[in-house]
Amino acid sequence: MADDLMQKIVALCKRRGFIFPGSEIYGGFQGFWDYGPLGVEMKNALKRHWWRWMTVEHEDIVGIDGAIITHPKVWEASGHIKNFVDPMAECKNCHKRFKADDLNSKKCPECDGELTEPRNYNILVPTSIGVVEEDRTECYLRGEACQTIYLDFKNVVSSTRIKIPFGICQIGKAFRNEVTPGNFLYRQREFEQWDLQWFVHPDDMDKWFEFWKEERMKFYKNLFTHPDNLGFYQHEKLVFYAKKAFDIEYKASPFGNKEIEGIHWRSDYDLTVHSKFSGQDLTYIDPDTNERYLPHIVETSGGVDRTFLFLLIDAYTEENNRIFLKLNPIIAPYQVAVFPLVKNKPELVDKAREIYKNLRKTDLRINWDDRGNIGKRYLAQDEIGTPWCVTIDYQTLEDDTVTIRDRDTSLQERINMDKLETWIKERLSV
Amino acid sequence: MADDLMQKIVALCKRRGFIFPGSEIYGGFQGFWDYGPLGVEMKNALKRHWWRWMTVEHEDIVGIDGAIITHPKVWEASGHIKNFVDPMAECKNCHKRFKADDLNSKKCPECDGELTEPRNYNILVPTSIGVVEEDRTECYLRGEACQTIYLDFKNVVSSTRIKIPFGICQIGKAFRNEVTPGNFLYRQREFEQWDLQWFVHPDDMDKWFEFWKEERMKFYKNLFTHPDNLGFYQHEKLVFYAKKAFDIEYKASPFGNKEIEGIHWRSDYDLTVHSKFSGQDLTYIDPDTNERYLPHIVETSGGVDRTFLFLLIDAYTEENNRIFLKLNPIIAPYQVAVFPLVKNKPELVDKAREIYKNLRKTDLRINWDDRGNIGKRYLAQDEIGTPWCVTIDYQTLEDDTVTIRDRDTSLQERINMDKLETWIKERLSV
Repeated sequence: MADDLMQKIVALCKRRGFIFPGSEIYGGFQGFWDYGPLGVEMKNALKRHWWRWMTVEHEDIVGIDGAIITHPKVWEASGHIKNFVDPMAECKNCHKRFKADDLNSKKCPECDGELTEPRNYNILVPTSIGVVEEDRTECYLRGEACQTIYLDFKNVVSSTRIKIPFGICQIGKAFRNEVTPGNFLYRQREFEQWDLQWFVHPDDMDKWFEFWKEERMKFYKNLFTHPDNLGFYQHEKLVFYAKKAFDIEYKASPFGNKEIEGIHWRSDYDLTVHSKFSGQDLTYIDPDTNERYLPHIVETSGGVDRTFLFLLIDAYTEENNRIFLKLNPIIAPYQVAVFPLVKNKPELVDKAREIYKNLRKTDLRINWDDRGNIGKRYLAQDEIGTPWCVTIDYQTLEDDTVTIRDRDTSLQERINMDKLETWIKERLSV
Repeated sequence: MADDLMQKIVALCKRRGFIFPGSEIYGGFQGFWDYGPLGVEMKNALKRHWWRWMTVEHEDIVGIDGAIITHPKVWEASGHIKNFVDPMAECKNCHKRFKADDLNSKKCPECDGELTEPRNYNILVPTSIGVVEEDRTECYLRGEACQTIYLDFKNVVSSTRIKIPFGICQIGKAFRNEVTPGNFLYRQREFEQWDLQWFVHPDDMDKWFEFWKEERMKFYKNLFTHPDNLGFYQHEKLVFYAKKAFDIEYKASPFGNKEIEGIHWRSDYDLTVHSKFSGQDLTYIDPDTNERYLPHIVETSGGVDRTFLFLLIDAYTEENNRIFLKLNPIIAPYQVAVFPLVKNKPELVDKAREIYKNLRKTDLRINWDDRGNIGKRYLAQDEIGTPWCVTIDYQTLEDDTVTIRDRDTSLQERINMDKLETWIKERLSV
């Protein structure tokens, strides 16, 4: 059943152009996926929604967009070179290797042979910069995007003169040599993160940790179709500098409760290690009190592709022989589809084209469809989550009204064509 | 003078938060830059503007967003492993190496020693995927983003049933081990491209090549402050499959006429080589005529960071002791700044906050500033290119009018606060 749902979603994603397997014509490349025409519209809308929520709804947050490749010392300082490891055990009989976390016994899952003790493998993705042997620098693709925020912390403060408490946010790609990529978009080797690093006075950590924990949950609850499928998971094992850590989990995935985002108490750990390894002073001076200190950090770090996947899973609905994606209209690939009732009546087509073109001048995402009959078009739009279908019929030619049909209820309403934009935008609030 | 301009722009970018040197606290990392708080807003606006221009103003274009890491065979097929090379000569005396294209003589520019014949160095950035030695795949970060479009071509056609002529567009990062990164954002090792691949029947290549050449120039001319600084450069040396190739150049850069975008006649070269190397049939069947053929391609491939850089250079203005960026309001980091006339009158501040908060509910980018005096705030906003400053003064409290001051003319106008959004949006057309 659960596997079945996942297969249906993977198939729908490919068939309708949400997600294609990476390098598919070359047999695919494990852990890499491409966003297709519908996927990229939905992903861009999702990223834009997050960005506005961070930088517009919260005044004291500014963004950055940093390079994927950084100086290699960054990963020494951050501890990734030493600690970013996946423990794996090898079968002494068939010599296959397995992620220790995935093993339930000391026996090989393939041949029942005896396993070695787990050994650590670093999952940073290596690269090298420079073309000439002697000038080549061995470095890494960033294993987490947030490190760039620490690198730019001082430049952000001095260029914006922003005052603590404040946040720096970023959306960007990160790379990990995952031993077992899988579960579609869930565990990829190339993926996108949306991070906030919220810098505070150490005395205020408790207050702000609670604030962001609730605030981020609100963000996801507003976005998902079934908010009850979201919950917190509190980590028990903590790294030495952390006092608390929570995951926001999606609890109805075909592969169990899974993390979408982590809310982390990072203390002054990151700025401390980067100060130490870079030799730079990263302290902040309060312009009002002149107090000088290393800010502490509350981090909210989520997966864009994971959110995308769970939104699809959450939206997927089968009802009365109909498959539809109950996506929040804010992030649906198309928000409106426009049809002429029939294709062979030029007056209808012209009128429909006029309405279509006018709607496209707004910032709504509009689709045109004149293939097959109306019933088939509704089904096709349902399956990609288009919340509203507008049909131009003979009555439109007489009184400028159109029918607008709701994806979730299948109910239709007649409204004046001039009211379309307003009607839709009123229903677009999250 | 020219060098001077470049230095001023680099300094302004860092001081005000457009661009920071990558990994700066670790001494920097040559060829890598981070976008700061203002830079990321401008870059996002620029990318969104291009995306809407491609996918909304042109109906037959859909987008994708593909993985940076692909199957290594992609780069064998594309010819990059063999041909993506920079010829370099070595000095026989000091053993330094130089890009052959940059040399004007057979002598070492550093020590005047004799140079070797140029040797080829491949500039693909290598990586490897998989953690266990025997499962490790040596591969590359994509050297140009467009290859992903060819990989997804068949999936796009079958998922959207789009008909030729049509385009697939993409914005995404690419990586090159440039021997001599430099000229600020112009030649980076990590950079972003915006590409259109326009698929046509071979008989229609001439027509569409001319169309896209003019259409893309129009895009840049509408965006730049001084359209006369843009021009075409026609390539004389062409690869065997190309009939024509033009660059759109920025002709007023401190380092000469430089390419922003290339318009390329690619024929059926790309789909041919990927068919051959993948063993997949990439032909297209015309649904109306049943003709089966390999589509030919017109490519428009531009640099996002290059456009960003040339927009800054083009906008930089010194006049009457004032420095300002004459940026197109569509892409200015902030479109409006809102100030209370003075900071210590709560009625003014409250009124200004109310106006500020209302404007932030729109999709405009709004800044708040209450530091220093009005004159200083104008200067600060001029320097980051904010087209309009709105001041709330005593008269606002009486009649709800505000002053709105124009960046380029310094002229002020009084308008009713309720008309602000409309007033601004009327002036936002490109």
